[in-house]
Amino acid sequence: MILQKVNQPQDLKTLTQEELLQLAQELRSEIIRVCAQNGGHLASSLGAVELIVALHRVFDSPRDRLLFDVGHQAYAHKILTGRKEVFHTIRQEGGISGFTKVSESEHDAITVGHASTSLANALGMAIARDTLGENYHVVGIIGDGALTGGMALAALNVIGERKPRLLMILNDNEMSISENVGALNRYFKEYQTKKWVQDTQKWGKQVLEGISPRLFSLVDRAKEAAKLMLHQENPFYAWGIRYVGPVDGHDLPGLIHILEQIKELDGPTLLHIVTQKGKGYGVAEEDPIYWHGPPGFNPQKPEKVSKGYSWSAAFGDAVTELAHKEPRLFVITPAMREGSGLVKYSQTHPERYLDTGICEDVAATVAAGMALRGLKPVLAIYSTFMQRAYDQIIHDIAIENLSVVFAVDRAGIVGGDGATHNGVFDIAYLRTVPNVQIAAPKDALELRAMLKKALELGGPIAIRYARDNVEKAPEGVWPEIEWGRWEVLKEGSKAYILAFGKTLKYALEAAQDHPEIGVINARFLKPLDKGMLEALALEGYKLVTTEDHQKMGGFGSAVLEALNELGLKPDIRVLGLPDVFFDHGSIPRMHREAGIDAAAIRAALAGMGLEVKTATRRV
Amino acid sequence: MILQKVNQPQDLKTLTQEELLQLAQELRSEIIRVCAQNGGHLASSLGAVELIVALHRVFDSPRDRLLFDVGHQAYAHKILTGRKEVFHTIRQEGGISGFTKVSESEHDAITVGHASTSLANALGMAIARDTLGENYHVVGIIGDGALTGGMALAALNVIGERKPRLLMILNDNEMSISENVGALNRYFKEYQTKKWVQDTQKWGKQVLEGISPRLFSLVDRAKEAAKLMLHQENPFYAWGIRYVGPVDGHDLPGLIHILEQIKELDGPTLLHIVTQKGKGYGVAEEDPIYWHGPPGFNPQKPEKVSKGYSWSAAFGDAVTELAHKEPRLFVITPAMREGSGLVKYSQTHPERYLDTGICEDVAATVAAGMALRGLKPVLAIYSTFMQRAYDQIIHDIAIENLSVVFAVDRAGIVGGDGATHNGVFDIAYLRTVPNVQIAAPKDALELRAMLKKALELGGPIAIRYARDNVEKAPEGVWPEIEWGRWEVLKEGSKAYILAFGKTLKYALEAAQDHPEIGVINARFLKPLDKGMLEALALEGYKLVTTEDHQKMGGFGSAVLEALNELGLKPDIRVLGLPDVFFDHGSIPRMHREAGIDAAAIRAALAGMGLEVKTATRRV
Repeated sequence: MILQKVNQPQDLKTLTQEELLQLAQELRSEIIRVCAQNGGHLASSLGAVELIVALHRVFDSPRDRLLFDVGHQAYAHKILTGRKEVFHTIRQEGGISGFTKVSESEHDAITVGHASTSLANALGMAIARDTLGENYHVVGIIGDGALTGGMALAALNVIGERKPRLLMILNDNEMSISENVGALNRYFKEYQTKKWVQDTQKWGKQVLEGISPRLFSLVDRAKEAAKLMLHQENPFYAWGIRYVGPVDGHDLPGLIHILEQIKELDGPTLLHIVTQKGKGYGVAEEDPIYWHGPPGFNPQKPEKVSKGYSWSAAFGDAVTELAHKEPRLFVITPAMREGSGLVKYSQTHPERYLDTGICEDVAATVAAGMALRGLKPVLAIYSTFMQRAYDQIIHDIAIENLSVVFAVDRAGIVGGDGATHNGVFDIAYLRTVPNVQIAAPKDALELRAMLKKALELGGPIAIRYARDNVEKAPEGVWPEIEWGRWEVLKEGSKAYILAFGKTLKYALEAAQDHPEIGVINARFLKPLDKGMLEALALEGYKLVTTEDHQKMGGFGSAVLEALNELGLKPDIRVLGLPDVFFDHGSIPRMHREAGIDAAAIRAALAGMGLEVKTATRRV
Repeated sequence: MILQKVNQPQDLKTLTQEELLQLAQELRSEIIRVCAQNGGHLASSLGAVELIVALHRVFDSPRDRLLFDVGHQAYAHKILTGRKEVFHTIRQEGGISGFTKVSESEHDAITVGHASTSLANALGMAIARDTLGENYHVVGIIGDGALTGGMALAALNVIGERKPRLLMILNDNEMSISENVGALNRYFKEYQTKKWVQDTQKWGKQVLEGISPRLFSLVDRAKEAAKLMLHQENPFYAWGIRYVGPVDGHDLPGLIHILEQIKELDGPTLLHIVTQKGKGYGVAEEDPIYWHGPPGFNPQKPEKVSKGYSWSAAFGDAVTELAHKEPRLFVITPAMREGSGLVKYSQTHPERYLDTGICEDVAATVAAGMALRGLKPVLAIYSTFMQRAYDQIIHDIAIENLSVVFAVDRAGIVGGDGATHNGVFDIAYLRTVPNVQIAAPKDALELRAMLKKALELGGPIAIRYARDNVEKAPEGVWPEIEWGRWEVLKEGSKAYILAFGKTLKYALEAAQDHPEIGVINARFLKPLDKGMLEALALEGYKLVTTEDHQKMGGFGSAVLEALNELGLKPDIRVLGLPDVFFDHGSIPRMHREAGIDAAAIRAALAGMGLEVKTATRRV
């Protein structure tokens, strides 16, 4: 075991080529072992093993900064940078994060989880280094999927102008989580197969072998070298960025060699490497989409398992069926076909389906254009990623009150993905926008009712649901819903719990067997059911609001505003997430810690003088 | 006068070439005349006259959709599409908008004001057209400045893959509001000067003249034509987009000719035209930055006028001075050097200044990278544009509590620019984010105190100020400020007005000569001064909160949350902007209409039983 000898990146410096090759295999085995146990981002981490070994061989982390875009491909990096012993805790309660995280290790250059941020971060770091007169390397590693994101493309544009010393590595595996989309990616693919590119590569390799970095830097400025390395047909040339590649990202000695050659070059350089997602693990190579982020599996006999029927699946089923009834319905996803439950839809209605790649802003504005011309777009988007379309929702959609339905998935605390992925701000940032309406269904049937009604009503409407499983609704059933009207699920004699979305289950649990406590499915946040709220307050009920969202600016805050507007001052407690970021871990534990679970509701009621004994826990 | 005969675009169809040329000159005169009277977006509208005449000659608006990116260059379009008689009301109270606006005219394809949205909108429209089996042209017109925006680049990527029939026109004037930045723009500039490009242009023109569109479309697919029109060195080629150009954007007959040639082409085509900002008006050609959006002027004797000392200037002066004391300070602007008051700073500290182009997301993440490596970045950004950096503020900055100061300019209602530019959501979307702090100074001196203190404290801190003038603070004075502590400006015996930011002046006006009404400069919103709030509530004062921001989720909402948390129920009225979008017009009038001015404060006090007679209006 070479890995036993390796605790820190400097331990790689003395290994032989054979040992490095063996190390890569051991890293691969360890990644498979731990993902089999915990689940995790298997396929992308397997594809980046050689790259990460080569980077730590050639560069000196933490002095040199290695920035992994998205950060879920960096498992080998975690193992090689002092986290070997805790690697098995990845994504677990109290364990290490599944992404790179600045507060976790000095070797993690950025805290990340969303795509396309590495190049702008790298630019900022390179400028900081040069401004402060320091001297270290900054290396931004970005996938071809993340390069479909506008902020990565725009960052290239600034980098090409500012021209700091900066190495970018395009890790091209032709995949996002799904197959990649985007013209640029197709171009890369065609590019690699061109004979003259292959010839130049060979030629380039020979020349590179013969020259020192210093010389190379000089030669680079000459016309001849320009022909060699700066393929003028390459789009990076237009951006003023030196392009090297494409090279085989699994050829470890080759990678080390080329990194050593180019590491001292001035200005920005982009090294294009080609890798295979899932590399070295048969099933993951064959089906990198499933094995992108599988739950636990038997490493000797890896099999796909069903993760249960999710809210995403419920949305996907509903919208697939609805599209048969509504020919103007059109579904857009920003690179989240699988995650958003849209595999079936995309196969059933391919002509009314668009994957924009990882660019939520474009996805929202494409929806605006569609709505302006008679379609009824549904934008399937995770709450956390919708943050990237905020201006477009306001500027392109809400000002003209355009009919776009937002299917807001992964709302609330999401568990294993942690702080970068929690969808806990959407209520606050959406409800302040005029014309936007917000609803949250209690079950899959209500989701169907809301979707159908939203398409009839028009205007921008967000329907919010959690990362969770839900009972499947019967096909073909499309109940009517009274828009804007809350639903009393349980009558109470003294108090009512107003629950928006996922916390409804905690409300029911807290109120169970307590006739004095009522429960309301406060399924519409905007418009708020002020009629029912006023009646409750006037009749003297004590109130508790609950939500899986920041307390600041959320549902409870909207209720407080409405009560003040009505001039009513009932006894009311607002439960929501406190003003901190929640890391990865178990959702129920975080809900408990945050004070939004059934126990917290009971405590709030007790605080208002309603002694509610601990109810029997629902099975 | 040809313009007298032209009321609708179809009136252009019968004009001779000479008449069209004269029409362009008349449009230019009319634009200068009205801008001289009202102020307005002069230089960019002058640069687009020939393009707009050509578009309306060749296409059939409103059947064909013409999408103007940003929309401030479309004055000639407004005049030619039934708004000739009301054109003099542009940007005025009750008049037409300075941007294109769907609800204003069937000829305005998109409602716009922010940059880089036209291509995604055009893609959505083209897909809608094809999905619904309709047949019209979609033309997206985008400037080279707007093309630095990531969402425009990402949209190109999707367009190049989806390949709808779609014409894009790159209106290349080498300018944003300031000189343009970005490697791609420099590339375009170099590109035009290449001999083979010029040769190909000539050749292309000859060939174009000889072939019908149908034939052209066929020829286009052949290798020979590819060499001609698909310059393989061009970055658009990598995106799979047919590239035509560059052509002279002021050669009206040439433009008409080429548009007629390419309008029926299949798939996406990009026509690159070169124009001059301010074309045809000497001063505007010479100084297109000042004449981008001047206030009124004498058209016969155009002279620059000072717009007074603004909050932006106060920020610029403060940060310029502060950078001498703090060598780690670094200022970033997303293409708003002039607007953000940074001309002097950029000249005094060029090595610690970065203009990222129109990409707020990149600007925020560059700031994150800088903060991670020891700099103290200050991001100067308009409230409305900060919406485009929302995810980056959360994901790249707030999670790790990085030290980035946001100088949030143009907060509140902005007046002439209207709904797209009002900065009325920032409190709601920022305060819900953990670690973010928010402050608003009452004057330029307090701005200096806050800036200095914010740099010392660290963490993400937003300092919010209005589009308004302010009294200049003395140089060299850097008062200390007690962070998080409100300031009592006037004692009251029965009630207090809590004012955040700009509405403080209304509070003082309302309370003037009324000893029972106190005024508090509630300058910190997060952290909120809960100590003072609690004391006021416990002592039984009636309270009114005021802010120039949406009432939903704003400062007043934060006060209500805090009071509920404290278990206190004082008599309190919350004043803020209602849940609608405000169009362009006079700021005081809109504040009156919104119910946040002195009269509204007095009415709120009266509603709580405090009869406050109309105070003498301050001069």
